[in-house]
Amino acid sequence: MMASPLPISYTVGDDCVSPTVVSIPLISLADIEAARERIAGHVRRTPVLTNERLDEAAGATLFFKCEPLQHIGAFKARGATNAVFALSDAEASRGVATHSSGNHAAAVARAAALRGIPAYIVMPEGSAAPKLAQVERLGGRITLCAPTQAAREAAAARIVAETGAAFIHPYDNPYVMAGQGTAALELMEDAPDLDLVLAPIGGGGLISGVSTAVKALRPHARVIGVEPAGADDAARSFAAGHVIPLERPDTIADGLRASLAASTFAHIQRGVDAVATVSEPAIVQAMRTLWEALKIVVEPSAAVPYAAIESGEIDVRGLRVGIVLTGGNVDLDRLPWVQGARL
Amino acid sequence: MMASPLPISYTVGDDCVSPTVVSIPLISLADIEAARERIAGHVRRTPVLTNERLDEAAGATLFFKCEPLQHIGAFKARGATNAVFALSDAEASRGVATHSSGNHAAAVARAAALRGIPAYIVMPEGSAAPKLAQVERLGGRITLCAPTQAAREAAAARIVAETGAAFIHPYDNPYVMAGQGTAALELMEDAPDLDLVLAPIGGGGLISGVSTAVKALRPHARVIGVEPAGADDAARSFAAGHVIPLERPDTIADGLRASLAASTFAHIQRGVDAVATVSEPAIVQAMRTLWEALKIVVEPSAAVPYAAIESGEIDVRGLRVGIVLTGGNVDLDRLPWVQGARL
Repeated sequence: MMASPLPISYTVGDDCVSPTVVSIPLISLADIEAARERIAGHVRRTPVLTNERLDEAAGATLFFKCEPLQHIGAFKARGATNAVFALSDAEASRGVATHSSGNHAAAVARAAALRGIPAYIVMPEGSAAPKLAQVERLGGRITLCAPTQAAREAAAARIVAETGAAFIHPYDNPYVMAGQGTAALELMEDAPDLDLVLAPIGGGGLISGVSTAVKALRPHARVIGVEPAGADDAARSFAAGHVIPLERPDTIADGLRASLAASTFAHIQRGVDAVATVSEPAIVQAMRTLWEALKIVVEPSAAVPYAAIESGEIDVRGLRVGIVLTGGNVDLDRLPWVQGARL
Repeated sequence: MMASPLPISYTVGDDCVSPTVVSIPLISLADIEAARERIAGHVRRTPVLTNERLDEAAGATLFFKCEPLQHIGAFKARGATNAVFALSDAEASRGVATHSSGNHAAAVARAAALRGIPAYIVMPEGSAAPKLAQVERLGGRITLCAPTQAAREAAAARIVAETGAAFIHPYDNPYVMAGQGTAALELMEDAPDLDLVLAPIGGGGLISGVSTAVKALRPHARVIGVEPAGADDAARSFAAGHVIPLERPDTIADGLRASLAASTFAHIQRGVDAVATVSEPAIVQAMRTLWEALKIVVEPSAAVPYAAIESGEIDVRGLRVGIVLTGGNVDLDRLPWVQGARL
C-alpha cells in the first residue's frame, strides 16, 4: 500500500442499476515526490526537446519529454524501479515477478538486478527475440507460457506461490503509477507554464501518474490522454463513466493494447480532461515525422499523442504543450513506412 | 581572420623537393570560447548519453555527444552560426553564400535567417529533395548547378561577385572550426576526465576544433579521428605528412566525402594522435547498433567513430571515451539494413 493513500468513494458498474460503491486509493503528489527520491540514481533525467519545424507546423510550442532515452528505452523503468525499491527487505528477499511481453518486463528485470534480487518474468511464447534477449541480459529468469492473458496470469500466480516473489503489475499498482508520474515532474520543471499535457493511454499507469502531478502543480493545465482508435477502451470508458474492457485491440501501437484497471480509471476520472483517439495511418505518419524532425527513435505507441496534433484531432494553436514520448523499442527491420518491411 | 590567430610555420607540398613554407593560422582555445559565447542562444547544448549495454560490449565507459539533437540535426549549426555572427554588420549586410549538398547548407541558411541577412546556397542538381526543402524552409536562396566540384565553386564565385556576399566555407574557415570545437567544450564538461575523444574526419573542420579544445583542456587525453576506408585521405595524409586529396570517395558516409584543406590538416597534425579507418559493413552495423541502443537517429557519417570501437579497430578497454555523434539527417526510406530499401 501507499504511504499516504487518499481513499475516495468510487462507483463501479452500470450507474443506472444499484451501483457498487468501493474505495479505491488514489496516489497523490507526495507519492510521486517520494518516488522521485526513491529512484534517483537508478533512472535518468531524460531531456526535453523542442523543435522549430514541429512548432511551426502546429502553431504551438511543443515540449517533448524523451523517455526513449530512459534506461531500457522507455518510461517503464520509472514505475518498476519505484515498486521494486519500495518493497521491504523481507519482501524483496524473495524476489519479484511479473508477466509482460514488453517494456515492463525489462524494467522489472533491471530494477531487480539493481536491488540484487531475482526477477521472475513470464513472457508469452512468440515474444520478439530482442525483447527476450534484453530481459535475459538484464538477468531476468524467463518462463515462457501460451500467448493468452489467462496463461500469463496463471504462470505468474504459480511462480508467486512457489517462490513468494512480490508481483509487480505493469500498471495496477500505486507505486508503479507514482513512478511514472516522475516524468511529469521533470517535464514541468524543464518546460514551465504548460497549458496542456498529452500522454498515451494503454493500461493507464502513465496517465494516472502524469495527471496527478500536473493537476497538483498546475491545476489549470489540461491533461488529455490519447489512444489508438483500434484500442479505444479508455475513450469509451471515459464517456460511459465506467470501465469497458478492451476486447479485440487492433493497432500497431503494441504498448497500448491493455485494458484499464479500476484503479487507473479512477485516476483518469479524477485528473484527465479528455481522451482523444487517432487512426493507424496517423500513428505511422507521426512516428515518421518524429524520427525525421527530432532524430529520436520512437515506437508506435510513443507517437500516438503527437499523432493527435499532427492530424488535427486536438487543437493546440497558441498553446504550450508537453508531450510524453514514452519509448523507443522498435524492430528496426519492420519500420511501417518502408516498403518490403515485414509488418 | 581570427581574433587571436597563432601563426606557425608549416610545410606544404612534397617535403623532399624544395618545400614551400607558408604560415597557416591555427585556432586556439580562446577562439572556441569566443565562439561559444557568440553562438549561445542560437544553438543547443545537446545531451551527452551513456548506455549500459554499449559500455558492457566495449569494456569501457562511453559518452556520446548527441549532435543529431542539434538544430538542423547536425553539429554544423555550430560552426556556421559562429562564422555568420562573426561578420561585421557591413560584411553581413550583403548576405552570406556557400555551396553544399548537405548539413552545412542548412546550417548557413538558418544562421543567416537568425541574423536577418540573405543566404545564397549553391546546391548540386540531384540533391536529395528533403535537403532542398529544408534549406528552402529556412529561407535559403537556392541556386542549382551541375553536380561537380568545379561547377559548385564557379556558381558560388559568381554569386559572391554579384552580391558581395561573404563566402562561408564548410570547413576551411577558422570561425567554422572554432564553432565546431564548442561541442568538445560541452562534452568535456558533461563527461570529465576523458582518456580519449573520437570524432569523424571529412573535411576536417570538426576534428580541428575538437582536438584544439581537448589538447588545451586535457593535454593527456588522446584524440583519434576516424574515417571510412573508402574515403581515407586523412589517414593517408597523416601518414605521409602532407595533404593527399581524396580522389574517388566510395562510402555510404556522405558527410565524409570531402578532402582536407591545408588549414584543417595543420590542425590535425598539431592535435590528433592517430587516424583510424573503418569498413562499410562496420559503419552500417554501428549505425544500427546506435539506433537500437541509444534510440538516436544517426546518419552513416555519425556512426563512423563508434564503428571503430565496435569492430575492434580501436582498443578502448578500461577507458573513458568521448564520442561526437555528428548528425542524424538520413533518408528514412533508404535504411541500409532494410531489405527492399533503395540504396
